[in-house]
Amino acid sequence: MTMSRARKSSPSGPEADAALKTDATTSIVGYRLRRAQLSVFQKFIAVFEELKLRPADYSVLVLIDDNPGRKQTEIAEVLGIKRANFVTLVHGLEQRGLVERIPSLEDKRANALHLTTAGQNFLRLAKSRHRALEDEIVTQLGGTEARALLLALLDRLI
Amino acid sequence: MTMSRARKSSPSGPEADAALKTDATTSIVGYRLRRAQLSVFQKFIAVFEELKLRPADYSVLVLIDDNPGRKQTEIAEVLGIKRANFVTLVHGLEQRGLVERIPSLEDKRANALHLTTAGQNFLRLAKSRHRALEDEIVTQLGGTEARALLLALLDRLI
Repeated sequence: MTMSRARKSSPSGPEADAALKTDATTSIVGYRLRRAQLSVFQKFIAVFEELKLRPADYSVLVLIDDNPGRKQTEIAEVLGIKRANFVTLVHGLEQRGLVERIPSLEDKRANALHLTTAGQNFLRLAKSRHRALEDEIVTQLGGTEARALLLALLDRLI
Repeated sequence: MTMSRARKSSPSGPEADAALKTDATTSIVGYRLRRAQLSVFQKFIAVFEELKLRPADYSVLVLIDDNPGRKQTEIAEVLGIKRANFVTLVHGLEQRGLVERIPSLEDKRANALHLTTAGQNFLRLAKSRHRALEDEIVTQLGGTEARALLLALLDRLI
């Protein structure tokens, strides 16, 4: 008891309620990137929970919509998603009737990806929710210039 | 065959070798954060492969070193790591003789975390490798000011 008290009052001893020294940890670029990414993804997941849409699903839908008829392998490569994971992801979107795989006219072994009409309508709804989320991020960052600056800095790391 | 050729030469048809339109996807803040985070983590993993150290292990070692004797729950909370995952992670570091869990003097039910002497030596080596990695990131970003700016912008998102 006495020892415990002595330690508590000692400036060099551990103080259960004192703030931790975190400078060295939080100044690791990778660490801070990961925390920021998780924080943004958590917001995304909360906003899109009702639509059962995860961040990767959304980026795939946007990319297919902008590039209808492109091969699965091309879409996966641009997004940096591993082939096996991408096949599972696309299968999920197909089951929900949002995406169709159509054998490519140029390469019979390849599948070309398209959004269905339901997929296009769904994406329109998702995009409007996403715009609200990006607006919130702009507010957090302190304006559209700060957002553009962040995107440019991140681009240098990719 | 003719149809395939016609599609290939059509400006609106899919062109297998043309670059994809990626603007809408890559301007999603969460998307670009994720790509940058993965890119930095891949570098980290390559540099630390020999030391069998993952990014989360490293941040835990740095934080324990800066805050010896603090409770497991406090360290996990600061890092935003779920309790179950953190227990597994610390167990791994303990098995390697880098970290010790010592029953807390103030709270007998809690474990206080310390680096062992081997852990301190290991961290010294890891830190020197990590400095080289951060220097590489500074070069990618275009200088120490750009790095400070990135850290400040990321902080606003956390």
